[in-house]
Amino acid sequence: MILNGYNEGLIESIKNWLREDVGAGDVTTSVTIPAGSQSKAVIHAKDNGIIAGITVAELVFQVVDSGLVFTAMVKDGDAVTRGTILAEVEGSTHSLLTGERLALNLLQRMSGIATRTRTYVDALEGLSTRLVDTRKTTPGHRLLEKYAVRVGGGANHRFGLYDAVMIKDNHIKGAGGITEAVQRARAVIPHTMTIEVETENLEQVREALQAGADIIMLDNMHPDRMRKAVALIREQAPHVKVEASGNVSLNTIRGIAESGVDVISVGRLTYSFESLDISLDLNEKKEG
Amino acid sequence: MILNGYNEGLIESIKNWLREDVGAGDVTTSVTIPAGSQSKAVIHAKDNGIIAGITVAELVFQVVDSGLVFTAMVKDGDAVTRGTILAEVEGSTHSLLTGERLALNLLQRMSGIATRTRTYVDALEGLSTRLVDTRKTTPGHRLLEKYAVRVGGGANHRFGLYDAVMIKDNHIKGAGGITEAVQRARAVIPHTMTIEVETENLEQVREALQAGADIIMLDNMHPDRMRKAVALIREQAPHVKVEASGNVSLNTIRGIAESGVDVISVGRLTYSFESLDISLDLNEKKEG
Amino acid sequence: MILNGYNEGLIESIKNWLREDVGAGDVTTSVTIPAGSQSKAVIHAKDNGIIAGITVAELVFQVVDSGLVFTAMVKDGDAVTRGTILAEVEGSTHSLLTGERLALNLLQRMSGIATRTRTYVDALEGLSTRLVDTRKTTPGHRLLEKYAVRVGGGANHRFGLYDAVMIKDNHIKGAGGITEAVQRARAVIPHTMTIEVETENLEQVREALQAGADIIMLDNMHPDRMRKAVALIREQAPHVKVEASGNVSLNTIRGIAESGVDVISVGRLTYSFESLDISLDLNEKKEG
Amino acid sequence: MILNGYNEGLIESIKNWLREDVGAGDVTTSVTIPAGSQSKAVIHAKDNGIIAGITVAELVFQVVDSGLVFTAMVKDGDAVTRGTILAEVEGSTHSLLTGERLALNLLQRMSGIATRTRTYVDALEGLSTRLVDTRKTTPGHRLLEKYAVRVGGGANHRFGLYDAVMIKDNHIKGAGGITEAVQRARAVIPHTMTIEVETENLEQVREALQAGADIIMLDNMHPDRMRKAVALIREQAPHVKVEASGNVSLNTIRGIAESGVDVISVGRLTYSFESLDISLDLNEKKEG
Amino acid sequence: MILNGYNEGLIESIKNWLREDVGAGDVTTSVTIPAGSQSKAVIHAKDNGIIAGITVAELVFQVVDSGLVFTAMVKDGDAVTRGTILAEVEGSTHSLLTGERLALNLLQRMSGIATRTRTYVDALEGLSTRLVDTRKTTPGHRLLEKYAVRVGGGANHRFGLYDAVMIKDNHIKGAGGITEAVQRARAVIPHTMTIEVETENLEQVREALQAGADIIMLDNMHPDRMRKAVALIREQAPHVKVEASGNVSLNTIRGIAESGVDVISVGRLTYSFESLDISLDLNEKKEG
Amino acid sequence: MILNGYNEGLIESIKNWLREDVGAGDVTTSVTIPAGSQSKAVIHAKDNGIIAGITVAELVFQVVDSGLVFTAMVKDGDAVTRGTILAEVEGSTHSLLTGERLALNLLQRMSGIATRTRTYVDALEGLSTRLVDTRKTTPGHRLLEKYAVRVGGGANHRFGLYDAVMIKDNHIKGAGGITEAVQRARAVIPHTMTIEVETENLEQVREALQAGADIIMLDNMHPDRMRKAVALIREQAPHVKVEASGNVSLNTIRGIAESGVDVISVGRLTYSFESLDISLDLNEKKEG
Repeated sequence: MILNGYNEGLIESIKNWLREDVGAGDVTTSVTIPAGSQSKAVIHAKDNGIIAGITVAELVFQVVDSGLVFTAMVKDGDAVTRGTILAEVEGSTHSLLTGERLALNLLQRMSGIATRTRTYVDALEGLSTRLVDTRKTTPGHRLLEKYAVRVGGGANHRFGLYDAVMIKDNHIKGAGGITEAVQRARAVIPHTMTIEVETENLEQVREALQAGADIIMLDNMHPDRMRKAVALIREQAPHVKVEASGNVSLNTIRGIAESGVDVISVGRLTYSFESLDISLDLNEKKEG
Repeated sequence: MILNGYNEGLIESIKNWLREDVGAGDVTTSVTIPAGSQSKAVIHAKDNGIIAGITVAELVFQVVDSGLVFTAMVKDGDAVTRGTILAEVEGSTHSLLTGERLALNLLQRMSGIATRTRTYVDALEGLSTRLVDTRKTTPGHRLLEKYAVRVGGGANHRFGLYDAVMIKDNHIKGAGGITEAVQRARAVIPHTMTIEVETENLEQVREALQAGADIIMLDNMHPDRMRKAVALIREQAPHVKVEASGNVSLNTIRGIAESGVDVISVGRLTYSFESLDISLDLNEKKEG
Repeated sequence: MILNGYNEGLIESIKNWLREDVGAGDVTTSVTIPAGSQSKAVIHAKDNGIIAGITVAELVFQVVDSGLVFTAMVKDGDAVTRGTILAEVEGSTHSLLTGERLALNLLQRMSGIATRTRTYVDALEGLSTRLVDTRKTTPGHRLLEKYAVRVGGGANHRFGLYDAVMIKDNHIKGAGGITEAVQRARAVIPHTMTIEVETENLEQVREALQAGADIIMLDNMHPDRMRKAVALIREQAPHVKVEASGNVSLNTIRGIAESGVDVISVGRLTYSFESLDISLDLNEKKEG
Repeated sequence: MILNGYNEGLIESIKNWLREDVGAGDVTTSVTIPAGSQSKAVIHAKDNGIIAGITVAELVFQVVDSGLVFTAMVKDGDAVTRGTILAEVEGSTHSLLTGERLALNLLQRMSGIATRTRTYVDALEGLSTRLVDTRKTTPGHRLLEKYAVRVGGGANHRFGLYDAVMIKDNHIKGAGGITEAVQRARAVIPHTMTIEVETENLEQVREALQAGADIIMLDNMHPDRMRKAVALIREQAPHVKVEASGNVSLNTIRGIAESGVDVISVGRLTYSFESLDISLDLNEKKEG
Repeated sequence: MILNGYNEGLIESIKNWLREDVGAGDVTTSVTIPAGSQSKAVIHAKDNGIIAGITVAELVFQVVDSGLVFTAMVKDGDAVTRGTILAEVEGSTHSLLTGERLALNLLQRMSGIATRTRTYVDALEGLSTRLVDTRKTTPGHRLLEKYAVRVGGGANHRFGLYDAVMIKDNHIKGAGGITEAVQRARAVIPHTMTIEVETENLEQVREALQAGADIIMLDNMHPDRMRKAVALIREQAPHVKVEASGNVSLNTIRGIAESGVDVISVGRLTYSFESLDISLDLNEKKEG
Repeated sequence: MILNGYNEGLIESIKNWLREDVGAGDVTTSVTIPAGSQSKAVIHAKDNGIIAGITVAELVFQVVDSGLVFTAMVKDGDAVTRGTILAEVEGSTHSLLTGERLALNLLQRMSGIATRTRTYVDALEGLSTRLVDTRKTTPGHRLLEKYAVRVGGGANHRFGLYDAVMIKDNHIKGAGGITEAVQRARAVIPHTMTIEVETENLEQVREALQAGADIIMLDNMHPDRMRKAVALIREQAPHVKVEASGNVSLNTIRGIAESGVDVISVGRLTYSFESLDISLDLNEKKEG
């Protein structure tokens, strides 16, 4: 739901991020590099991983200077190893150096997320369970990070507070119960929108089913209990989807999946991460 | 350089981030929680670490609803343990739930950075070496992340491309040499601005000294070579500062510091991190 | 999904709209009314209808001048008649007159939409069919107009291109068929998101059912054919919802509803309308 | 005063309106239509009327994707009938479908206004009376709607609160009288700016003339009284213009015009309207 | 047309200007002044002149920190002498020092303009001729500078390209003549808008009169020729206003005025100026 | 630090400034000049001076209409005389006339600053003293004005509150002394940032030296005292720079420079100025 079609929102973010880094000007570049200097740069991986964001990096350079020519050597989702050349960028040396840091910061973070996602997806190999992210994304980067999760082989949970009803613990308390919450929601929301209910035990699962939830989330349950919950749900409401959540790690994810849930959501896909090490080198100077 | 005085820029960021999460509206809250509902919530740590961003979390709630009352129980820089209550927030249940995720996302990330920074600072205990960050920060979060580094006991490198001259490898190539780069810079920059030069060997160190650099960065050198570089610099230009950089880890940082450098910059303080686990619970419902 | 909680987006719109009207300044007011003049104004209906937007009008006056005191005499959804006093506003005469036009323009339009919606809802009296709007709203006013539809007793269709999949004629052409379109969508969209398919005949209805659509829209079908489609869908997939659409008027809506569809969407709730006549009078001058 | 020269303001509005509709992304298009798909679409009228906004529709598509090629088949002001092809648009299927709704929403509304305006203009055929709009325009659409009025054969009243003095009932109350209001205004406003006074009876007409108004508006007067007012004004101040206003309808407008007024302002040109039905069809699929 | 009522536009400008000066933060203040420090400052004149902008300075401090208390000791238009205390500001030392420079920069410039304007107004003493400004204002400061001209005793010409027709030399060339230009304009512009024509000789004056101009500007004419032009205009069209323009200086303005023109426009009121010297001193430190 | 590389910030300012001038539209041009009209214009000097801002003028025309072709005949820093042609601009007559005023307003102001700066630089001929500006720039124009100072042969002081520590009188009061202020600052600021201290007498100079200031400013001292201060500083801390400040005029600057200071800062380079007279003429009409 991004990087495919109209992306004015991303361009605005890139301009804000450039303002943060460039401010009153890239002093070093403007005072050390002759006006009119032209260069060619390569962007290469310094570690192994899955690339995500190559078109975002390109967009950064285009926003800085539409005269830069960016040639991608890999595409999002490709596995790369230390030394792989990801792209070449050619044009004004000033523009190249001014855009370098932001382009790398984004590419490194997104690739780090795709790389981690892939390890979780691999742990689910052979199963039909879907791996999804959460709203624990970096503020300002949600669409990019959710895209990186898809690149890594995962899928997405809702995009924000606006595109699905997710009745959590605090809403249940505030509403006075699962039944009240689901009924009030159903009466008002568009017929195109679904209701997910977070449950902590089988009793809540039953109440959610009864109330008419479209999706039931099993929060922090033991896999055995999840199995029972899944059985209950399949029996009573076969079209209701089941999601598992809560401190899922690489060690526990397969066991959880084998309980039969449809979807597992994993916060740490985005709220902690290891950037993939990537760098840019000017490797050729050309006449201005 | 933030959180101290005029912070319109941060308020604008918070509004952008809320727009990302809330979009057309927090559907769940608006349809499940009765209008006028009042609650009290507690924010508590679910792991051990150093808190950073408590006033940022407060600001998020104030932007959402200036009627919310936020009472901090800890202050930035405090070490907390699993279970420590960080703050109480009281007021409109709608506002509390709408602001929850953004407030936590920020607080978790900033505290994660402060916590990691503290481990590096601890590794330098007893030495006068300064630990600093880099520009490898999350786009849109630079001032917050650099603040979190200070909270964790570190210091900051330059804030962006605009507030100091940093002549790196690519600039040296583009300018035709260290001497050319430094001289061109000095002729134009304000007398209040300094010039740092990145060097890879002793020959470059000598050229940078000769050219009149204010700060010399030793990039990816072996500690033994660093020691020689430091000796050379102290002898020839005692007021020039020396910075070490390049893949510094908790294992290597003390050895590097003992080479006598003034400053060590560590990218991984911000470009990879583990969020500190923090959550918010409505624990009391009040009449609207 | 608006007017309930955080509404920074609406405040930004109001500022833009005030800029459109006020521009370099409200010349007439600033040159004719003494500085410091205080007044009380009443807003009253000049026709019969359903009020929507009373809190939007209040917000306009608050954005113009937070010192204005707005006292609503009716609430959204109330039926009023010619002469009913809707609200009183008291404070700076300058602020009252500067905000008057925008407040009225919004209140008149929203009330016009609620009033028309009510007539359609009344035509469905006694039936369980839901009346919903479309995306044929005034650019920049979607959330307000969809809110006005709810105030008038209707419900909403999706909020935009982002919160549900709606496979229309042009998408079917572009994708190469209903089956292809639904399958591709299901593979990528969040498990919280639904798929609606627009169909023009029973064959398409069958294909959409087979492909696994969550909602099937019957576009411009004769009520008899709708009846058959509904029967088919109920038999094969009881949890699938059925929507009727296409040139629905007050004359035809009841017949359509009696075909058994769940939802009827009506473009003309928002894309043509008659504003409700409302005006503001200064009725009391007070000392400054 | 728009669509002729620099139109950055309109481009900003289009971006805001696209953000409203597209939000986090056009999910349906991005998941159902293959990347790189190219199409040709036609925009055609589904009813009879006067077209306004064809270049606005073009601009929408250009903002979405500057690679789209838009070929207008009609120009603003043309009378069209059901089935007339208004334009062809060719290029990325994704971009076509993402921009479709906004382009149509604007074109339909503006054409609806031009169509209605034409009926009023026709009612004045053979008379020199000018038909003008009011400030009762849709917030955010004033320049577009005033342009549509001109396209339909009408003219414009002032553009906002900033470009002329219009002393209405509430200002007269606030200022303490027509004379006071006019004199205060004249003393301060630029010599390039005019003063219009709203009057309800002949006594006020006389006071406005005496005070030196440039334009006198006869508000809600009977045509007979208007005739007397016009005679009075022509005699005493031949260069003063006379405007009639107040609940003007197609039935009453010619009678009002025959009273000899120069200008008739009609709120319903813009504050209630019937959109002209227009739609877009992909009619040809091309290889990507 | 500013500083009187709704002033969101000015607040936005102040935020932009603070961003320019403060950027990532007021480093000096934040690192040298203890948090919580409270002070009282006085703003005083260091030269003689006319004050303009005292409420603008107040607004700057309020935007920086709504807790600052600003007490004006003079009002706009007051003549002050070296040493006059203009205002006291009390509150957070941080906020005071962060806002100081912008508040002074604005107050100094606006007062400089008011002071110069007063000298021109004084040169016209006893005559009814109006002194007005031009569009040669500082980009971004037009409303403030035009306000300062009014404070100094002058009046304003049009506010921008949008609120009056001003047919200058280049338009006459482009339109093919004065007559063509005036007629085309009259056919389209609102009846509330006026047409001014710039003329260079009596022939053009005659053509402008004949074409129906509302205002005739005599550009760079000798006072004798102006006298003839005025006589011609008075005779043929008594309600047409006459403006003189072109390199008006303090030496020539009275002679020009005595030719009988209604208005004299003077570019140098705003496009060259001498700021009035004003400074701020912390004169009392208070406990935090 | 501007006009060299990425300049989105300047483009945003130009759009804001065009909005200020053009507002709802350039009425005169749009109603008098035929659509499609093409022209060629020349921009020429009407007085002698140093040109600054020729590329800013070009950028204004490009923002108005990217189809305009701007050919510069001079470059920034060139000395021109009355009549020199600075540039030719060719393309849409509408665009030319709409952009004219803003382009000239900027070019005139920047050239006025460069011209004045040159006179101060000339007064320092043969000396190594650097002439620098201050923060007394026009709000919103700082980067342009500091650039104009460089064009005129001067250099820049810090760019804002964010890129250097400048401890002035008010900070010393607030901090409790020079020593406290310098020490607090040094402990927190990046190692790349410098500290300048404003001093009023030799005692303060000694304290600043002792505290470790990087730059010492001598404020409003008599040249004889400056000479003593310079001697003291050179002796104790040869790498510390010395700046003179305070009411420097063309008459006094050489005497101040001869005291041996490194830098002289002059507020009046930007806070008072005489625009250079420049105008634009359409000199050729072409077929549209």
